[in-house]
Amino acid sequence: MPQFLNSADPGFEAAFAALLGMKREDSPDVDAAVAAIIADVRARGDAAVLELTARFDRLELTAGRLAFTPGEIEAECARVSPEDRAALELAAERIRAYHLRQMPQDEQWTDATGAMLGWRWTAVSAAGLYVPGGLASYPSSVLMNAIPARVAGVERLVIACPTPDGTVNPLVLLAARIAGVDTVYRMGGAQAIAALAYGTATVAPVDKITGPGNAYVAAAKRRVFGKVGIDMIAGPSEILVIADAANDPDWIALDLLSQAEHDESAQSILITDDAAFGQAVAAAVEKRLESLERRAIAGASWRDYGAVITTRDLAEAAALSNRIAPEHLELCVADPEALAARITHAGAIFLGAFTPEAIGDYVGGPNHVLPTARSARFSSGLSVMDFLKRTTIARMTPESLAAIGPAAERLAISESLQAHGLSVRARLDRLNRG
Amino acid sequence: MPQFLNSADPGFEAAFAALLGMKREDSPDVDAAVAAIIADVRARGDAAVLELTARFDRLELTAGRLAFTPGEIEAECARVSPEDRAALELAAERIRAYHLRQMPQDEQWTDATGAMLGWRWTAVSAAGLYVPGGLASYPSSVLMNAIPARVAGVERLVIACPTPDGTVNPLVLLAARIAGVDTVYRMGGAQAIAALAYGTATVAPVDKITGPGNAYVAAAKRRVFGKVGIDMIAGPSEILVIADAANDPDWIALDLLSQAEHDESAQSILITDDAAFGQAVAAAVEKRLESLERRAIAGASWRDYGAVITTRDLAEAAALSNRIAPEHLELCVADPEALAARITHAGAIFLGAFTPEAIGDYVGGPNHVLPTARSARFSSGLSVMDFLKRTTIARMTPESLAAIGPAAERLAISESLQAHGLSVRARLDRLNRG
Repeated sequence: MPQFLNSADPGFEAAFAALLGMKREDSPDVDAAVAAIIADVRARGDAAVLELTARFDRLELTAGRLAFTPGEIEAECARVSPEDRAALELAAERIRAYHLRQMPQDEQWTDATGAMLGWRWTAVSAAGLYVPGGLASYPSSVLMNAIPARVAGVERLVIACPTPDGTVNPLVLLAARIAGVDTVYRMGGAQAIAALAYGTATVAPVDKITGPGNAYVAAAKRRVFGKVGIDMIAGPSEILVIADAANDPDWIALDLLSQAEHDESAQSILITDDAAFGQAVAAAVEKRLESLERRAIAGASWRDYGAVITTRDLAEAAALSNRIAPEHLELCVADPEALAARITHAGAIFLGAFTPEAIGDYVGGPNHVLPTARSARFSSGLSVMDFLKRTTIARMTPESLAAIGPAAERLAISESLQAHGLSVRARLDRLNRG
Repeated sequence: MPQFLNSADPGFEAAFAALLGMKREDSPDVDAAVAAIIADVRARGDAAVLELTARFDRLELTAGRLAFTPGEIEAECARVSPEDRAALELAAERIRAYHLRQMPQDEQWTDATGAMLGWRWTAVSAAGLYVPGGLASYPSSVLMNAIPARVAGVERLVIACPTPDGTVNPLVLLAARIAGVDTVYRMGGAQAIAALAYGTATVAPVDKITGPGNAYVAAAKRRVFGKVGIDMIAGPSEILVIADAANDPDWIALDLLSQAEHDESAQSILITDDAAFGQAVAAAVEKRLESLERRAIAGASWRDYGAVITTRDLAEAAALSNRIAPEHLELCVADPEALAARITHAGAIFLGAFTPEAIGDYVGGPNHVLPTARSARFSSGLSVMDFLKRTTIARMTPESLAAIGPAAERLAISESLQAHGLSVRARLDRLNRG
């Protein structure tokens, strides 16, 4: 049974604070092992990657076989059904269209002193996407990571994906091909992250690494951060549904379960202004759990981390949602736009009863890589911006330097940075001499 | 003497690669000490902060005196000269004008299926700015961190600044007041970062922490990352000047020294297409070093990390610059715009001989918090975006769900995520029943 809370109860604030503070991730501390793996790859390059791949993925490779050949990719892609291929292509097209709109503009203007100011956006040159092996090897994540990189203009885009015992998900390779990935390496774990960050004889280093992974991958990404850019370190998935009594309890139950089935540490929360509806949804969850393929996982998540919260009204529901700052937020209410206007912190909002969160996982268009663990308070989902960087630009005229240079000189002196001040003064003196 | 390299020499590639790989930072490993401090502040709150402040800053405070009172701030601000105040106000006005232009737009559109898609930007609710004490207590950095936060719409903006032996830089408090900071706390080091991230009885927790600091502050920011957002971890400052022989060697020498004077680990590099001009600049540096106040620091930086590189032409200079990905890049050439078009990786570009980098440190308008240590390959300087986050939005109509829902269902099944598929199928079935 999930927790049932009611905002009118005297103990509510304490119970809600406990829900907010709940620690759902219990990653093993693998940092020392990861540090050793990274050092090994830096020292021995390909030889280390190949040895570790043999050990962890039970796969004997040579450096020449680290990357899939075009022929191998073609053969795997041919195994995908036309229906799956069409679904992937539709998803890719919609994701591309959405992310194209995110491309920011360069700006340049002249201010009142005559100074030219502005900025320019340029793409990261090379990016590496990590794709987990096994059960969590999701083709949709390949699209969600690779397409924004390609839209941003990344020149070289590679994937690292472990192939335990030599097995690979053909849909992953097809998604990579559809998204325009250049190379797919058969390597995983911390060794793959190290190879992408530092390079080996076979693997050229990249500038940015994104994508989900297990505790080893997450620890390795933290360690190489600074040498390369990384995306967020994602935690277990979450959904918050705000729903009124006009909804079908079974739809809402399925939406809650669609996050719960990801992971025993996932969290699904319903906030409703009708306690009886909350009970009906909880009953529908139990009924669906009887037959769900992943009922063990989803059931554990719902039991340990699930919650049904009843509020006095929807405004209160929005206020609680902002304290949670959910990764996914469904607004299944009569006027979802009005409620959305009250939301200040959320990774993605799904409006209305015909927008189940799963649409956003695959074909909606927005990215499904979103901030977890309340980090929507300060961060955003993956976007083209993760593969772009801004260079600021300034050009002073003699007149503009004469206008603002003396203030710079004064501030430099106040900060005891004499050379800063002199670099301005030398030019001002020239101007004063005419 | 700095290194002199010439791209026409046979050993150039190896020497340039060594320059690129140079490790300039040698931070002590303080992580264990920092972990203990953070744990202490989490466990004991104000009491820990006050004890650590007494120990490290030799300042006995009570919780009630952690924050400066308005009267105390007023009294300190009154000590600032009218000239310094005017310079700070000019800087603030220009920084605000530049960052206002960075505010991104919300977007919303309807696609061919009838689905509404888009995104919204919202501000981080509360931000904390770290300001070092002592020599590195720069009022300009207060403006560069606080103004983008205010422009973004951050509601609560606080500063943590250590006051060793009770001393504070009045210009820091004035800059805080000009920038609209709400509260300034007399606390520093890892204990300040912990208090901002986790909160104490006196210090309300924030969502994002920015600003420079020593090794303890940097390690603490790394540790609280995830609980709160952080900006980059800044390394020693760098400047790269590309200059032709038409420049005054003394101006270029001062520009190189304006970074060298920051830190013995700072790096100043000149690339020129004229070897004799390179020698003339090096001679001008030596001459200026004779009388510079910070000659010990600047001299060590120039000797250990400085470089003068001669190239065949300016195009080659731009290519080398892109491999360096400098924090600051001055283009002192006849056609700086044309050369800038070749630059793909740089934190900030300063065009033409009348735009010394120091202008950008104070009054240009662009931010002076910029990516160091080659991280301009994948990251940008501080901006309003650091205090904003994007929420993606989607709303399906029944028609758009009917159009794209089946593809989502198919992909969910291919990823063995049954509840995802069912959440779409339940709605499609209702539509099919009409």
